[in-house]
Amino acid sequence: MTSVSLSDYPPDLSPEEEHYLLTNVKDWSIAHGLAVRPASAFVSGEQDPSGVLATTAPVTLFPSLFPQSCFEQGLGIQTAYNELYSAIARDEEWIRGIVEELVEIDDFVENLWKVHLEVKKEGYAQDLSLGLFRSDYMVHTNPETKSLGIRQVEFNTIASSFGGLSSKVSAMHRHLLAIDAYPSSTSSVIQAEALRQSKATSSLAKGLAAAHSAYGKSRSGFPLSVLFVVQDPERNVFDQRHLQYSLLEESNARSFRLPFHRTLLDTTVDADRNLLYTPPSSPSTTYEVTTLYLRAGYSPDDHPRAEDWKARVHLERSRAIKCPSILTQLAGCKKVQQVLATPHSPHLRRFLADEHVASRVLETFAPIYPLDESKAGREARKLARHPDAAARYVLKPQREGGGNNIYRQKIPEFLDTIPQKNWPAYILMEMIEPPPLRNAILRNGEVQKGGVIGELGVYGVCLWRNESGEGAGEIVENWEAGYLLRTKGDQSEEGGVAAGFGAVDSCCLVGDS
Amino acid sequence: MTSVSLSDYPPDLSPEEEHYLLTNVKDWSIAHGLAVRPASAFVSGEQDPSGVLATTAPVTLFPSLFPQSCFEQGLGIQTAYNELYSAIARDEEWIRGIVEELVEIDDFVENLWKVHLEVKKEGYAQDLSLGLFRSDYMVHTNPETKSLGIRQVEFNTIASSFGGLSSKVSAMHRHLLAIDAYPSSTSSVIQAEALRQSKATSSLAKGLAAAHSAYGKSRSGFPLSVLFVVQDPERNVFDQRHLQYSLLEESNARSFRLPFHRTLLDTTVDADRNLLYTPPSSPSTTYEVTTLYLRAGYSPDDHPRAEDWKARVHLERSRAIKCPSILTQLAGCKKVQQVLATPHSPHLRRFLADEHVASRVLETFAPIYPLDESKAGREARKLARHPDAAARYVLKPQREGGGNNIYRQKIPEFLDTIPQKNWPAYILMEMIEPPPLRNAILRNGEVQKGGVIGELGVYGVCLWRNESGEGAGEIVENWEAGYLLRTKGDQSEEGGVAAGFGAVDSCCLVGDS
Repeated sequence: MTSVSLSDYPPDLSPEEEHYLLTNVKDWSIAHGLAVRPASAFVSGEQDPSGVLATTAPVTLFPSLFPQSCFEQGLGIQTAYNELYSAIARDEEWIRGIVEELVEIDDFVENLWKVHLEVKKEGYAQDLSLGLFRSDYMVHTNPETKSLGIRQVEFNTIASSFGGLSSKVSAMHRHLLAIDAYPSSTSSVIQAEALRQSKATSSLAKGLAAAHSAYGKSRSGFPLSVLFVVQDPERNVFDQRHLQYSLLEESNARSFRLPFHRTLLDTTVDADRNLLYTPPSSPSTTYEVTTLYLRAGYSPDDHPRAEDWKARVHLERSRAIKCPSILTQLAGCKKVQQVLATPHSPHLRRFLADEHVASRVLETFAPIYPLDESKAGREARKLARHPDAAARYVLKPQREGGGNNIYRQKIPEFLDTIPQKNWPAYILMEMIEPPPLRNAILRNGEVQKGGVIGELGVYGVCLWRNESGEGAGEIVENWEAGYLLRTKGDQSEEGGVAAGFGAVDSCCLVGDS
Repeated sequence: MTSVSLSDYPPDLSPEEEHYLLTNVKDWSIAHGLAVRPASAFVSGEQDPSGVLATTAPVTLFPSLFPQSCFEQGLGIQTAYNELYSAIARDEEWIRGIVEELVEIDDFVENLWKVHLEVKKEGYAQDLSLGLFRSDYMVHTNPETKSLGIRQVEFNTIASSFGGLSSKVSAMHRHLLAIDAYPSSTSSVIQAEALRQSKATSSLAKGLAAAHSAYGKSRSGFPLSVLFVVQDPERNVFDQRHLQYSLLEESNARSFRLPFHRTLLDTTVDADRNLLYTPPSSPSTTYEVTTLYLRAGYSPDDHPRAEDWKARVHLERSRAIKCPSILTQLAGCKKVQQVLATPHSPHLRRFLADEHVASRVLETFAPIYPLDESKAGREARKLARHPDAAARYVLKPQREGGGNNIYRQKIPEFLDTIPQKNWPAYILMEMIEPPPLRNAILRNGEVQKGGVIGELGVYGVCLWRNESGEGAGEIVENWEAGYLLRTKGDQSEEGGVAAGFGAVDSCCLVGDS
């Protein structure tokens, strides 16, 4: 590991060097399923009605430089985060407090909470919960000490994506190094021991397998299966498929894909609350679902019909282990992150008894303020309405799913456009100011080069009992499950590769400079 | 293994069954690199100028039924074929006789021979030769005994393709079985033990690695590398890439891709006859080439310029181990197959001393006649000019590369269009009449169903010395290297998946019925 000057990385390439690098990226990616279905702007549905075309997933040509200390900090803290969020998800009373602040302004949270209440009335049939989490960070320079650390951007408790592709992109960058696709001028930086292979595919699949196994024997007599609840169509299907293939090959566990809108057509809940799935391709075959892995259901867009909320109740009341449960999904709302990260908040210690662990987690929070009537909220409103002060902040909706953040000087004018009673639907977060970086991104066949921002996502697997025999919850499995580096242009201030704003990347570790 | 009635296989699918099967084929194929670059009729160069799109390789949805005895016969005979063709390639005098019959009518053979003569004048610098062969068969019913056997269609000594994809398609069919994508009505036929995994990727790569290793130490002091000589552009690039990746991962051997037309730009032969390759992407780096793997150079189309023949001489005179050498390439011309398969030919025994081995090879020949002035040739001319008799034959040019065969009743009229002196450029071969089969092929997003013909290709690796210290040749390595099943519609009478006339397939073994 060496510290490296930004201006040298990535190096400028001769046309021949770029051709060699690109050719190898294009071929390796397709040969190994580092792919997405093309956007409709690239390939229209009329041209490829049956959807057989694929293209290289948006990727960086080079692994981005990433401080080793920050990488290790992120991976090292993940099991503490798993513990924290599983504890939150078990604490219905606490979540109720959060939800009550949001119900009037956020239909989606309100509807999720109603699902929980309806199921609670009947009583939950399954005590185990599974989380396949991803905690996202940026590197931040401490203004006083100038030391580098990670600051959390968000914590995902549902549909944490790109684990399947992250393992592929880190393998690809290692391959490119092995075949000398990186110029020799980078040899002091891009070294095999500096490139970290992400184990996310295998590790997340093992998480699903752990739940599948912990579910126990079939009660219905039907064979057991995992069910992936998905959007349809899904451009990022290979990311999900790699988990399915790993689950089958490494753990011999069957899985099916259920488009969320077909939930009530293809599944039933029997008298014993078993979730039974009948594949449309085989109407005479039934599976008992052990584990429900949601890659859909995280946004209001997935619930356009009243029937979709019936489907959520239907799934939640079943005996299948949910990944995530409604309460776990609610634990991931930004309001929770804000409440935990509000300076001097007592909440973190409620969930993490170990003071040392709690302080390590606290170090990764960016200060977050509510926009409510509390003391901190009133202070935040002042900051948010003043263009100069607002320049250090980002305004985020409490809802899941990126795409609606308001940045810096735009915050005051935005707040002017919405009624003040709706302000508590947003939180104000101090901007993380990451060190400048450069990279080149391949997307839809075009190479874009320039300043980038990298976001480290650390996956975590956690399987827990909500109420053990002794009353309290019990963590059954808890591990760090690999990482994703997601890199976007520093002009765009939105993340989310699938939405078209970034690329999957891997870490080339460097010493702090 | 069970014998199965044709009319039941493959089963008709409900729309839901077909959707499940197709979705899984489309996703698995891209996730695992069972892919090709799309044809320009499907995706134009203007739409995708940098060539990032890919599509599922033409594949069969079901593994085709194949008699187990024939499968085992084909794989079992491969090392004998390797021995045969390496012996032919070592027998310059015998090849001269073949070539002399062709030079006046086949420029390509003539030009290849000239390359050999020019290198021979100087003396060959490399005694080792590598063959990555593929022997292609169809199943044939013996008209007398009604027993099934294989009949050879052709023997490929250069650029034997689809090894990389064959391993993938057999894995895919096994996966489809594992996830119940085949209806339960097929469960007595499609069973795990009946589906044969092709080991071609790994086994062919091991062949290249064996040559790479047998080459010995670098004489030039430069690092060693294998060189894939390729066409450019190449739609079937992933087939080749899988060999490169396997070579690197399993044998730690570097390889590069050299578009054939760049041979004289990117390679030099030094005073010691070492073949030195300088990647355009790294002009200050040089590799000594151990093994030259030709995936181009098999057809006149690859040699449009006089310079291309200079390039062949340049490569052939180098110390690199050729896969194949010019003499090995010539050994694969159809005239050789014809001479060996002419009834009562003495030639087979010249090359295979063991009578038992020779007779096993002989069993796989379809009777082949010359169209020359010999006794057999005059007999064949009579057959070929008579429509009824011709109906049992195919007329094939001696040249490599399919696409110009004349079938059955069309033979007499075709012969009328060319001067009689040119007839010896063709051979007449008894048609193989394979048992009728059905399957469904996915190509460019369309599913075509119907009668098909399957062609079993068996790969072989053979590394030999042309003249050992004791004078005679010596076989250093000789193994059977997996298989390909290539399936085409029985309406089309041309093979060759890349050219658009077939699909890659795998064998579902059944008892002879």
